[in-house]
Amino acid sequence: MLVSQLLGMTPGKRDLISIDDLSNEEILGLFRYAEEFDGDLKAHAATCPGTILATLFFEPSTRTRLSFESAMLRLGGGVISATEGGTTSAAKGESLADTARIVGGRYADLIVLRHPDEGAAKVLADYAEVPVINGGDGGHEHPTQTLCDLYTLWKEKGHLSDLEVVLCGDLKHSRTIHSLISALARFDANIVCLPYEGFEIPSHVLERLERRWGSEIQRADVGDLPGISAGKDAVYVTPSRPHQQSLFTQLNAQVVQRIDAIYMTRSQRERQGDDDKGDGYMSLGPTQLKEKRFKETSILHPLPRVDEISYDMDRDRRAIYFRQAGNGVPIRMALLAFLLGKLKLGGAKPPRASKKPLYRSSHGLRCSHEVCICNREGRRYLISEFEVIEELPPLLACAYCGTEERPQFVGHRQSRKLHRANAAEATRIHVENRVYFRDRTAAVAAGFGEGL
Amino acid sequence: MLVSQLLGMTPGKRDLISIDDLSNEEILGLFRYAEEFDGDLKAHAATCPGTILATLFFEPSTRTRLSFESAMLRLGGGVISATEGGTTSAAKGESLADTARIVGGRYADLIVLRHPDEGAAKVLADYAEVPVINGGDGGHEHPTQTLCDLYTLWKEKGHLSDLEVVLCGDLKHSRTIHSLISALARFDANIVCLPYEGFEIPSHVLERLERRWGSEIQRADVGDLPGISAGKDAVYVTPSRPHQQSLFTQLNAQVVQRIDAIYMTRSQRERQGDDDKGDGYMSLGPTQLKEKRFKETSILHPLPRVDEISYDMDRDRRAIYFRQAGNGVPIRMALLAFLLGKLKLGGAKPPRASKKPLYRSSHGLRCSHEVCICNREGRRYLISEFEVIEELPPLLACAYCGTEERPQFVGHRQSRKLHRANAAEATRIHVENRVYFRDRTAAVAAGFGEGL
Amino acid sequence: MLVSQLLGMTPGKRDLISIDDLSNEEILGLFRYAEEFDGDLKAHAATCPGTILATLFFEPSTRTRLSFESAMLRLGGGVISATEGGTTSAAKGESLADTARIVGGRYADLIVLRHPDEGAAKVLADYAEVPVINGGDGGHEHPTQTLCDLYTLWKEKGHLSDLEVVLCGDLKHSRTIHSLISALARFDANIVCLPYEGFEIPSHVLERLERRWGSEIQRADVGDLPGISAGKDAVYVTPSRPHQQSLFTQLNAQVVQRIDAIYMTRSQRERQGDDDKGDGYMSLGPTQLKEKRFKETSILHPLPRVDEISYDMDRDRRAIYFRQAGNGVPIRMALLAFLLGKLKLGGAKPPRASKKPLYRSSHGLRCSHEVCICNREGRRYLISEFEVIEELPPLLACAYCGTEERPQFVGHRQSRKLHRANAAEATRIHVENRVYFRDRTAAVAAGFGEGL
Repeated sequence: MLVSQLLGMTPGKRDLISIDDLSNEEILGLFRYAEEFDGDLKAHAATCPGTILATLFFEPSTRTRLSFESAMLRLGGGVISATEGGTTSAAKGESLADTARIVGGRYADLIVLRHPDEGAAKVLADYAEVPVINGGDGGHEHPTQTLCDLYTLWKEKGHLSDLEVVLCGDLKHSRTIHSLISALARFDANIVCLPYEGFEIPSHVLERLERRWGSEIQRADVGDLPGISAGKDAVYVTPSRPHQQSLFTQLNAQVVQRIDAIYMTRSQRERQGDDDKGDGYMSLGPTQLKEKRFKETSILHPLPRVDEISYDMDRDRRAIYFRQAGNGVPIRMALLAFLLGKLKLGGAKPPRASKKPLYRSSHGLRCSHEVCICNREGRRYLISEFEVIEELPPLLACAYCGTEERPQFVGHRQSRKLHRANAAEATRIHVENRVYFRDRTAAVAAGFGEGL
Repeated sequence: MLVSQLLGMTPGKRDLISIDDLSNEEILGLFRYAEEFDGDLKAHAATCPGTILATLFFEPSTRTRLSFESAMLRLGGGVISATEGGTTSAAKGESLADTARIVGGRYADLIVLRHPDEGAAKVLADYAEVPVINGGDGGHEHPTQTLCDLYTLWKEKGHLSDLEVVLCGDLKHSRTIHSLISALARFDANIVCLPYEGFEIPSHVLERLERRWGSEIQRADVGDLPGISAGKDAVYVTPSRPHQQSLFTQLNAQVVQRIDAIYMTRSQRERQGDDDKGDGYMSLGPTQLKEKRFKETSILHPLPRVDEISYDMDRDRRAIYFRQAGNGVPIRMALLAFLLGKLKLGGAKPPRASKKPLYRSSHGLRCSHEVCICNREGRRYLISEFEVIEELPPLLACAYCGTEERPQFVGHRQSRKLHRANAAEATRIHVENRVYFRDRTAAVAAGFGEGL
Repeated sequence: MLVSQLLGMTPGKRDLISIDDLSNEEILGLFRYAEEFDGDLKAHAATCPGTILATLFFEPSTRTRLSFESAMLRLGGGVISATEGGTTSAAKGESLADTARIVGGRYADLIVLRHPDEGAAKVLADYAEVPVINGGDGGHEHPTQTLCDLYTLWKEKGHLSDLEVVLCGDLKHSRTIHSLISALARFDANIVCLPYEGFEIPSHVLERLERRWGSEIQRADVGDLPGISAGKDAVYVTPSRPHQQSLFTQLNAQVVQRIDAIYMTRSQRERQGDDDKGDGYMSLGPTQLKEKRFKETSILHPLPRVDEISYDMDRDRRAIYFRQAGNGVPIRMALLAFLLGKLKLGGAKPPRASKKPLYRSSHGLRCSHEVCICNREGRRYLISEFEVIEELPPLLACAYCGTEERPQFVGHRQSRKLHRANAAEATRIHVENRVYFRDRTAAVAAGFGEGL
């Protein structure tokens, strides 16, 4: 591939930047290994001798870091770790690209990165010779949390398809949720989004579910889930096929028979900014779960919790959030061993490469997302890169942070002619000659414009 | 046990929260293993493969942390570590109870906790599935320092019973001292407390020695230990049996023949608050140790020192504080291996469980100690818990921090009748029905009071 | 040796405080082992079981720390680590000497220290029982960076002698450069110093090259290296023997045939203080390297870089700075294994001990360098120590930081007679009786002075 050659990417190495970097088959294969590891966590110390994991945490997250480190040590490998911006070379101005080439050269055989900037993990992966795992990049992706969540559901329920899963809380800012919802949709689960009021799931996330996995999205009234959510704007996501028995009377006139799992999330105060409304967040406890349809409802939470799950829930057999946290170790053992080439997944195929064209350009359209790595340190060395999701009118998604852009104008790189984005002429320009512009002003400023 | 079932405690696991969690037999058994480990520290790397120690340090203490980590690594295990409040999930509001269930679930096989709040280690132990070691909880306990101190004395002198040990310095704030004095008393050593003026050993510590180990406590004049202490208020603690030759002319008209050890401590400035008097703290050096009775006096210090032991003492053969620090590694190796079930201590029995009744109540008396974990984050989820040390009049000790309370009133949980604590009626209430109150006002406010 | 006995130094242990602590033979021996390790970094995990490296970093340096930790883990040992002043016992006032005796006792088998004070590593080495490696002590020495630089040049070019190496950038504050230039001179390389204006190589460094390695120093005009340096004050350092073909037309009327390597360094802003001129620092990229004589020029940089090497250089085959960083792991593996006694270097002899007399005195001349460890915490316990480089007039170099002093007066320790330093009488005083003074005032204040 062109980009990998440009950057000197190592052919054949596998990274985990998004949960979509693993196929369903591979995910299920990892689950089976995780169960095996979990049987006796101490019995696998001969798996990776002399092998080193680097945990680079530019944002604190003890639990994620410790679970990765525990997983690597249990496999018999070693761990090197750098935490907090202040103690790393970053303080002297080192770019992620350089860190990737140094730490991901001879220092470590695998890197986990946590970083406040969205897309940071992709940058590290692009420049490192060794596999990179995204341990959370801002509000973007946190795929190993998703793996752990799916593994927990799979282990408890025996399957993922057809599960009725309710997602609660701050569905707007939680990256955990955005990854999870997509993964659940991939595995044909039914999902109810029950947001805390004002923290609804963003529409671009839902649109992506429709586009990507063919999910059907329906607005729903949550009148029959009293006590869990005060919000009205619930959403029901189902696979696009004859519906299973569904949750809501209002949706299909059937009474909900069961809810398999409720996934509660905390209020993401550090990302909410002005949205923060202080007290009054949701709270889940045994009193809200007395109805028969909650009898087998597993309660999950990515932890840490604040008060959104009450302490008297902890001793309820349906509360599996501590087991869920514990599952983080064996599933990460499986993932690490897999990326290090130590596991065979029985012929499981990797995900198919996207056929969408890539648009790369050092001028014209840039990602508009303020905390995208492109607009942070990446300004110094990254070229804008987008996946062209739709051609006419153009819809582009930033290759780093996934932010979608709808440029209004397209120019020809050589002739400098300019076209409206929804004009037929625009599509006739070969993708390598296209230069997208947000608006006419930007195009003219760049010396384009004769075509109109 | 009721409490363990309530909390889901793991039956049979051993924690080290206080030095009293180990019996004398077990302690001596650990010493013998420590000596064996010390013979060749590098020869035991096959003891604990795949096993993980978590060091959770919410307060800095490099030496304690490094000695535990070194011990675990020398046993062939791995270490995961979280230091400083700022970098842990605590910053997002995670409780110790939740940390215990996560880290002490699948992440680690053993946890060492250092925490500024007294009783924090007990909380972690109550909620973790794996053994917990108290690496220092505020001014409360620091049992592995005590183990190391005892081991050093035992190794140098060959025995602990009958030793003449002088404790010097800040005897008020040093948890090291409070643990050590109790342990020395258990092993029938004679102890002289020589405080820096204003930093005398608290009376509740002495009372506990009398109550717990039957120690005899005598005030002493330290006129014949000039140069070591300017304080006048020395205390002599001996086992309650025919006295050995004692230190002080004034006590028994005998001249002291020998002092086996002087244990010096630094000024605990960070805990002194307004007590801090700045300069003028004690200082020990060769010039103060010229008399014949100091000829075989070992000088110990928990380190770090500031100026209370002069640098020209370092080359004196009696100075064993650096050796003492070094002993921290093999004794911790023995402790870790023991708690992980890797050592047999030749049939040594664990300490007998306390027969004192436990008093638990969500209302009524609360621990009055400001930095007790009950009054910090524990407010959110802990129920007050006391050991009933004496029934009439009641003397209760907080199960978390050991602070003793003498409630003035006792009510009946059902009838709501109230009695003075020193009334006979009070004892007739079954312990499960008792509600203790600090004073009448508190009782009335809680709706008790008809009985008077 | 007297000093080692005084301090209880461990006889026979080897430290690496300065690159001069290794002989040329030993360095080349380490290179051969590094190459072997590099063949398969994961294949050596059985080399050091149960062995522990302590990394003590009182100043952040992720790359140095991680490379040491990676090296130790790849050898199968363990790592304990303390970073940042704030989290160490130093916060309670522990001296480096005490840290050395504790950590360098039973905790670890080897220590790497990074510290902001110059000479700190020597203090640690003097007091620790185990080998100590200087991981950078202020602006003084950073010998493992030098080892890595030399190893990279040796690996790329096959030899070190006769290389034409250009050193660029901040040659004033970079400790990397000061160590490297001396090491290159030892191996008979030719060195061009091309400083950024105002950041010329200090004259005392050049004088030491002449004195120590017999180098010839010539001022040079850099008119024929346009684009690399705007500075005029270049210096050419060659072995004192018939010159090789040299770089500069102006020097010997020959056209330069080749430049083997350019070693670029970043602007050491954190050490520059008032010298800092902000923008306008040097920048190296492919456009400056188009001439034929740059065809085989390897570009090195100790990293992290800021902008002094442009990103478009990264894909140039001559850019070897990332490989150079990677080399840090195998060369440190070789060094650690060597200091731990695991490697035989085929009979390579250690460097000859200096024959210069040592001058130690608790009064009289003190090191004038503000950030020398003598003038920081060492004030509490270190005695001034100098190597007497020249007798008449006296030139002394601080044994800790290397700062050279030219005392004006010499007194007799017993008679208290005073002499001008350039007087013949001064040399007649036996070195053990000499007391040096910076000037007459200091001498008189100390009670010397009858001799004049």
